[in-house]
Amino acid sequence: MSKVMIIGAGGVARVAAFKCAEHPEVFESFMIASRTVSKCDRIAADIEKELGYANVTTAAIDAEDVPALTALLNEYRPDLVMHLALPYQDLTIMDACLNAGISYLDTANYEPKEEAKFEYGHQWAYQQKFKDAGLTAILGCGFDPGVTQVFTAYAAKHHFDEIHYLDIVDANAGDHGKAFATNFNPEINIREITQNGKYWENGEWVEIPPFSIRKDLNYPDVGPKASYVLFHEELESLVKNFPTIKRARFWMTFGDEYLTHLRVIENIGMAGIQPVMHKGVEIIPLEFLKTVLPDPGSLGENYVGQTSIGCRIKGIKDGKDQTYYIWNNCQHAQAYKETGAQGVSYTTGVPAMTGAMMFLTGEWAGAGVFNVEEFNPDPFLKKLAEHGLPWREKLGVDTEMEYPD
Amino acid sequence: MSKVMIIGAGGVARVAAFKCAEHPEVFESFMIASRTVSKCDRIAADIEKELGYANVTTAAIDAEDVPALTALLNEYRPDLVMHLALPYQDLTIMDACLNAGISYLDTANYEPKEEAKFEYGHQWAYQQKFKDAGLTAILGCGFDPGVTQVFTAYAAKHHFDEIHYLDIVDANAGDHGKAFATNFNPEINIREITQNGKYWENGEWVEIPPFSIRKDLNYPDVGPKASYVLFHEELESLVKNFPTIKRARFWMTFGDEYLTHLRVIENIGMAGIQPVMHKGVEIIPLEFLKTVLPDPGSLGENYVGQTSIGCRIKGIKDGKDQTYYIWNNCQHAQAYKETGAQGVSYTTGVPAMTGAMMFLTGEWAGAGVFNVEEFNPDPFLKKLAEHGLPWREKLGVDTEMEYPD
Repeated sequence: MSKVMIIGAGGVARVAAFKCAEHPEVFESFMIASRTVSKCDRIAADIEKELGYANVTTAAIDAEDVPALTALLNEYRPDLVMHLALPYQDLTIMDACLNAGISYLDTANYEPKEEAKFEYGHQWAYQQKFKDAGLTAILGCGFDPGVTQVFTAYAAKHHFDEIHYLDIVDANAGDHGKAFATNFNPEINIREITQNGKYWENGEWVEIPPFSIRKDLNYPDVGPKASYVLFHEELESLVKNFPTIKRARFWMTFGDEYLTHLRVIENIGMAGIQPVMHKGVEIIPLEFLKTVLPDPGSLGENYVGQTSIGCRIKGIKDGKDQTYYIWNNCQHAQAYKETGAQGVSYTTGVPAMTGAMMFLTGEWAGAGVFNVEEFNPDPFLKKLAEHGLPWREKLGVDTEMEYPD
Repeated sequence: MSKVMIIGAGGVARVAAFKCAEHPEVFESFMIASRTVSKCDRIAADIEKELGYANVTTAAIDAEDVPALTALLNEYRPDLVMHLALPYQDLTIMDACLNAGISYLDTANYEPKEEAKFEYGHQWAYQQKFKDAGLTAILGCGFDPGVTQVFTAYAAKHHFDEIHYLDIVDANAGDHGKAFATNFNPEINIREITQNGKYWENGEWVEIPPFSIRKDLNYPDVGPKASYVLFHEELESLVKNFPTIKRARFWMTFGDEYLTHLRVIENIGMAGIQPVMHKGVEIIPLEFLKTVLPDPGSLGENYVGQTSIGCRIKGIKDGKDQTYYIWNNCQHAQAYKETGAQGVSYTTGVPAMTGAMMFLTGEWAGAGVFNVEEFNPDPFLKKLAEHGLPWREKLGVDTEMEYPD
């Protein structure tokens, strides 16, 4: 039996905390630590009320304050830190984990505040440090990144000798009833999607303007949805770990109204990440936008519809062409009923807890820094389905997938 | 020969200052005072360079600081204050004028910061004070409000026994080449146009949702443009001063892209005028939006096209139906070439200077608070045309005007 420390108190942390509390056979106790301790207390109180699980402690912590976090880790001595706060904080939390000798898991790769550039280089650079310390760092264990890589590893293990084409497809066919809101931290979301797109082809990255490649892809139980190629961080590790891949792309659905709002937000300068002087105070427009937009955590109550995220793969098995699709659909309302958070938080928090469970039960082990496709996918996917994210697969994909010859 | 004090250093103040300097026979010298004295200095330097007029002094002043402004007025002793800064500041400047015994002119009616409610009540309440002091306060002497009321007074004087229907039509058929920008202070502009619309009919105000009445009106030398009914402050004084008016409306043109941007700005909460807490600082979203949007003063350089603003009137003359249209068209590029400011600033600054000239030359006189339609329109309109805003008129309007039977 083990104890973990969850850093963060947003929707993803809420889901992961609920899920840990549902499995006291692994998570004997845990701490939730965040800048605003009242948010941690609220989650702890809800868990005790809903699940009767009382082994949650809380603490106030600035995750960018390495000495303070090191001290808190040394005081609580968790078996694993689950970092479910902001990706800006990956490195300071990894540093504190190394100081205190504690293993680490996160759901999004490090990104410097001043440039929206998603790449694993910053965190892969910790490889030797974690190896030397005999500690494990599990990077990107949400849904995407996270489950999509485990799906790919599962496909490689069971259905392919060589993967040639990989398309990760991410649909949110939900409706939260607000004029405009982002499904997770708007600051991170808008930084991510206003970047140039990028995909891997024939050994190099092809850069494209944002939203310049669009197709109506067909999603199971959802139907066709306008989908756009954008860069997503798991592509970087997947093409490294599966070098037979000739092309890897990431597709995400966006509605026309969402894109209109995004275009205006950029036009009026509110997507900017450089500070501007306003009445003697430096304000970063995108951070202020986050303040005025609805809290993604508030979207759950009236959220209807579902997400559908999976991998469409083409390659070779036993000398023959093979196509394959593996995916999960998640209902927003069901996620909210169980955890008080909507589906986008749910599909990130459940894999985070499942990855933590893999580590704590010894299924995923090793000293160093790992992306999740480097581990055995089978026990993870078994538990993932049991924990609320059942997945489906089929060999032989339909024509909507539009793979090249 | 007289001297005036211009308060403000934006586009309108720049135009008015240039125009005053072009008429040293009336404006022997003047001061430009504003919170940021460097902006005043820049206008003074440009005027000296372009026009060889060196009688401009500048000062730093917070127009909301009544004692400081009173002291500055007592020191400079102008014959008139031309308030061309923000409408929030009307009352403090009127107070300082009363303290110092100096007459007053502005271009927009007072509006409290905390509610976007345009009405003359606040300023009309100063009637007795100005009367007792033997001072003149001239309210709303820009284009609209301002010239539109003088146009109406001119129509009433020369072409109608009774005005029954008045439609003020304001087209900006210009293109500044920016994705989105407002033509004057974005804070004031967005407060104004996101309000419910309102027009006068049969003795009462009819309130309508924003942008809910639209017609394609035809503008001279411009053609048809989508035009929307909104409330504009001069309607309030016109229906009071011309009680025969059965219906008075104000129309303004907006492009679809402008309205899309406006809709998104409201959806995302950036049109809000209540402060929100952001990192421990109270920020008013609309004020911050003003900070990130292009400075309207920067639009001039590449601005093409023209404005067209006028009054369409129906009524009775000598017992017969009469229709009449009086308007001005103003080219942005020409305004910029002359003053370094675009047409929307030009059409406000020129009437402000012309009104000041009316007061200083004794054409407009009286103790108390006045709206401009209460004065003799003839000398004003003669000078207005000479000063760069020639106007045209015709009896018998075309069917695009769509008056009711």
